[in-house]
Amino acid sequence: MESPRHEDAVLSSITEIVSTLLPRPGEVYIGDDAAVLNDFAGQVIVSTDVCVAGVHLDTTIFSVEDLGFKAVTSALSDIAAMGARSRAIVLGVSAPPGTDLESLHRGAALAATMCDTPIVGGDMTTAPQLSVAVTVLGECPFDDAVTRDGARPGDAIFVSGPLGAAAAGLRLARTGTAMSDDAVMAQRRPMPRLREGQIYRMAGVTSMMDLSDGLGIDLHRLADASNVGFTLDEVPVAPQATWEEALSGGEDYELLCTTSDVDGLIRACAEQGIGMPLRIGTVVADANVRTLEDQVFARRGWQHEL
Amino acid sequence: MESPRHEDAVLSSITEIVSTLLPRPGEVYIGDDAAVLNDFAGQVIVSTDVCVAGVHLDTTIFSVEDLGFKAVTSALSDIAAMGARSRAIVLGVSAPPGTDLESLHRGAALAATMCDTPIVGGDMTTAPQLSVAVTVLGECPFDDAVTRDGARPGDAIFVSGPLGAAAAGLRLARTGTAMSDDAVMAQRRPMPRLREGQIYRMAGVTSMMDLSDGLGIDLHRLADASNVGFTLDEVPVAPQATWEEALSGGEDYELLCTTSDVDGLIRACAEQGIGMPLRIGTVVADANVRTLEDQVFARRGWQHEL
Repeated sequence: MESPRHEDAVLSSITEIVSTLLPRPGEVYIGDDAAVLNDFAGQVIVSTDVCVAGVHLDTTIFSVEDLGFKAVTSALSDIAAMGARSRAIVLGVSAPPGTDLESLHRGAALAATMCDTPIVGGDMTTAPQLSVAVTVLGECPFDDAVTRDGARPGDAIFVSGPLGAAAAGLRLARTGTAMSDDAVMAQRRPMPRLREGQIYRMAGVTSMMDLSDGLGIDLHRLADASNVGFTLDEVPVAPQATWEEALSGGEDYELLCTTSDVDGLIRACAEQGIGMPLRIGTVVADANVRTLEDQVFARRGWQHEL
Repeated sequence: MESPRHEDAVLSSITEIVSTLLPRPGEVYIGDDAAVLNDFAGQVIVSTDVCVAGVHLDTTIFSVEDLGFKAVTSALSDIAAMGARSRAIVLGVSAPPGTDLESLHRGAALAATMCDTPIVGGDMTTAPQLSVAVTVLGECPFDDAVTRDGARPGDAIFVSGPLGAAAAGLRLARTGTAMSDDAVMAQRRPMPRLREGQIYRMAGVTSMMDLSDGLGIDLHRLADASNVGFTLDEVPVAPQATWEEALSGGEDYELLCTTSDVDGLIRACAEQGIGMPLRIGTVVADANVRTLEDQVFARRGWQHEL
């Protein structure tokens, strides 16, 4: 009844690939009905992201391994955005027959290892198009996960780094730039700002989110959630990126945050030895005021059609 | 730039549909980068299941609402299988343009409400075929989640109910039986044995799993994990089901468990007012002994082709 590529056989090969981080004593990862994780410290943070070949990554240019990598790190970016510590990853893979499932999982496993977060479970099934649903779990020790709705008038607005590299990388890759180029790597192999998120949280930022769809739409989402407006002074543009790519390219996975304690944030970053966040503007009380260099700053950026 | 079916607009409609269970004080569900849940009691249990239209549910017969319902309850069955209490559900939906996303989420929300478990987050994207990746979280208060590997020679083997109803329901629905028929409902609207799982755990069962792929393969998986054999005396067949459907139909989501304390299990079920589990056989030391009524009991049942 069984052929070599039946479910149990494939699962065995994949399990070996993704088991780069061993279970802690008392924990159970892949192979049972569910994974068992030791007690979390404080709040449990959970988020899921679906990554579809051809929609979220151009698979005529990039590899299935890139897709596995990016699916994992883009999902972990939501854990970073809450200021949480990542604890676990589960994968739900839908794939057409003949997909190189081993390469896909090698990419996911590399990302998990680089983020020091185990892949603890998953499911695989056949479907006409390759997609990966990644669910990530994190913990927030002092019950102080940072949401989007805490920005207050007068707060300074920061981003964790310059913007637009991922969009520039996609443009450059399409015209033949090497896969190892910095901007192309930002598109293929984005890294979540997990350490930055925790340091920002401990420094008392009032609101935070990650820039997955671009500053041009994500900042509006944060302002909407907090019921405030903003005045932007500048937008830091990544090397090789255009102004438009910085505003609406998306997929940079830099963090966007607000704080009433600028000195505290700067000091925390210096003490912990991470890069300095970049101040881009100020929160204002009037939710209708949304400007960049005194011009109206309209919503723009990536929205999926549903 | 925005049309009424752009992402933010669809998310707003879906959010209302799935928000049947309100966040507890301090919790954040849909709308931020990630959901924030209050501290779990003990171990954190996590599992993911991908449910594809046409693969896991015949969508020429059953509705998109049925798919949403079944995706959620079949995933929660893995929480039941560990003896855990369910805490949260996240959905990753891939859907072709024009899919009735509201109906899909109505089914998921009904299942979540019936299982008293909130839908706390999700993601949606376009794809050529409808699939739902459901990740479920549970808690296990006394750090004693029940795995598959604890069956010991001499243990009694139990199932939580008769088998084959879901497979019978699929056969009957294909020949025009009413959607409200008991067996057809077992196929369309399976319920996880969450209460049973917790009671069995507290009664000290030595191993447990849910019967998603059929006794004919799942019992072998449990025996493999525990490195034991078994002798089955009988297999309880659900009303309307055939012998073969009971053995290899799958999707019944009854629990399979082993115990060295038969009286304790029976007493716990009686005290808690749940149905009596059915004894089907005995665990033996020799992993090569796998029989039903003294005949060799071969592996059989559902395996996906990958």
